[in-house]
Amino acid sequence: MTIESALYLIPVPLSDSPMEQVLPAPNAQIVGTLRHFIVENVRSARRFLKKCDPSIVIDELTFYELNRHTAPQEISGFLNPLRQGVPMGVISEAGCPAVADPGADVVAIAQQEGLKVVPLVGPSSILMGLMGSGFNGQSFAFLGYLPIDEAGRNKKLREMQQNIVRNHQTQIFIETPYRNNSLLNELMRVLPGHLKLCVASDITGERESIVTRSLKEWAHMKFDYNKVPTIFLLYQ
Amino acid sequence: MTIESALYLIPVPLSDSPMEQVLPAPNAQIVGTLRHFIVENVRSARRFLKKCDPSIVIDELTFYELNRHTAPQEISGFLNPLRQGVPMGVISEAGCPAVADPGADVVAIAQQEGLKVVPLVGPSSILMGLMGSGFNGQSFAFLGYLPIDEAGRNKKLREMQQNIVRNHQTQIFIETPYRNNSLLNELMRVLPGHLKLCVASDITGERESIVTRSLKEWAHMKFDYNKVPTIFLLYQ
Repeated sequence: MTIESALYLIPVPLSDSPMEQVLPAPNAQIVGTLRHFIVENVRSARRFLKKCDPSIVIDELTFYELNRHTAPQEISGFLNPLRQGVPMGVISEAGCPAVADPGADVVAIAQQEGLKVVPLVGPSSILMGLMGSGFNGQSFAFLGYLPIDEAGRNKKLREMQQNIVRNHQTQIFIETPYRNNSLLNELMRVLPGHLKLCVASDITGERESIVTRSLKEWAHMKFDYNKVPTIFLLYQ
Repeated sequence: MTIESALYLIPVPLSDSPMEQVLPAPNAQIVGTLRHFIVENVRSARRFLKKCDPSIVIDELTFYELNRHTAPQEISGFLNPLRQGVPMGVISEAGCPAVADPGADVVAIAQQEGLKVVPLVGPSSILMGLMGSGFNGQSFAFLGYLPIDEAGRNKKLREMQQNIVRNHQTQIFIETPYRNNSLLNELMRVLPGHLKLCVASDITGERESIVTRSLKEWAHMKFDYNKVPTIFLLYQ
């Protein structure tokens, strides 16, 4: 298989579900032809590549690590092979590169230089949480993490309420997994009980659960999302 | 294969690309076990089901049509088989059900009644456009169609600019495909030239093109997106 010179954006399973469950078959074939990878974490990228193709020779591959430790002035150099016509891949830790994950910086440079970018299909907890929530899919916003300081956080929660009521916009956000339960308790405490919260956790995993209830109803439920990758969605 | 009783949200290819290119293999297996489908359009759903499984007997299947012609009070009744423990599927015209497409209403009813909802992996032009744009994937909003009336449209464009500058939020929107070119011309005319526009068209199709340029640069480019399914993304 030969593939066109481009920057391939390669999704990775979200949980430990088998690759073939959540990725179209050609993804592994494309991955198998690539020799240069921009990755969030070299160890987990290697593990993913071995699963794509058990016969892959890792020592023949070149990895460029792109995460919060990477110096911004280094990033452009990663694309040198692509500038010479050699196809490259971008792999993040879980889910889709460049969405709630590093990768956007290097895609932006490729776009600036007119280098071709090709996203592949794969699981996204944001998108699948939204599908399963029953909330408005015609208008939605992903906000990333809420601010940590109390003032900023309360301001953000007020804005979210406004966007739900005025713009009918579904609000999607995440939390560090060990704080999931305390976030849920906070939402019940500070937001009106008629608002609906969808908690989508371990998507595509064995313990997948996507549950939409009013905050009033959540108050009567038993839950434990501690350390489980989870997406939160709010709507009315 | 037997599957758990749930409402399965079944993505469909975006263009005429072969199913196995863009859908994980188990999707077709799950579809093959279902007998009841809530669909946006019966004809295109039948065509998709035949591609999933050429031996499928369409006459043994029941279809419930959910689109803007469906009376709201009819929707709940569609879920009667699921209420009795029979798994059901939701299929939209293209892409992911309930995201920029009908389906959310019926998912909302299932959630209200505590019926299980399971989204499957598949292509989403919103998500893949965002991946390929190089724009901020930590904060983004999908706005659907812009308002048609001039006052509402100008107001929306101003809000989009504010959200880009103040909140660093990528703005994603769509247009009726035969108006793609005039939308692009309008954006060049009314927005500051330094803003960046990504035009992502025919995603996963043979003529896929994902191009990010400043509006100033777009003004010097030749383009024709007339009648091609296209997603527009704005950022700075």
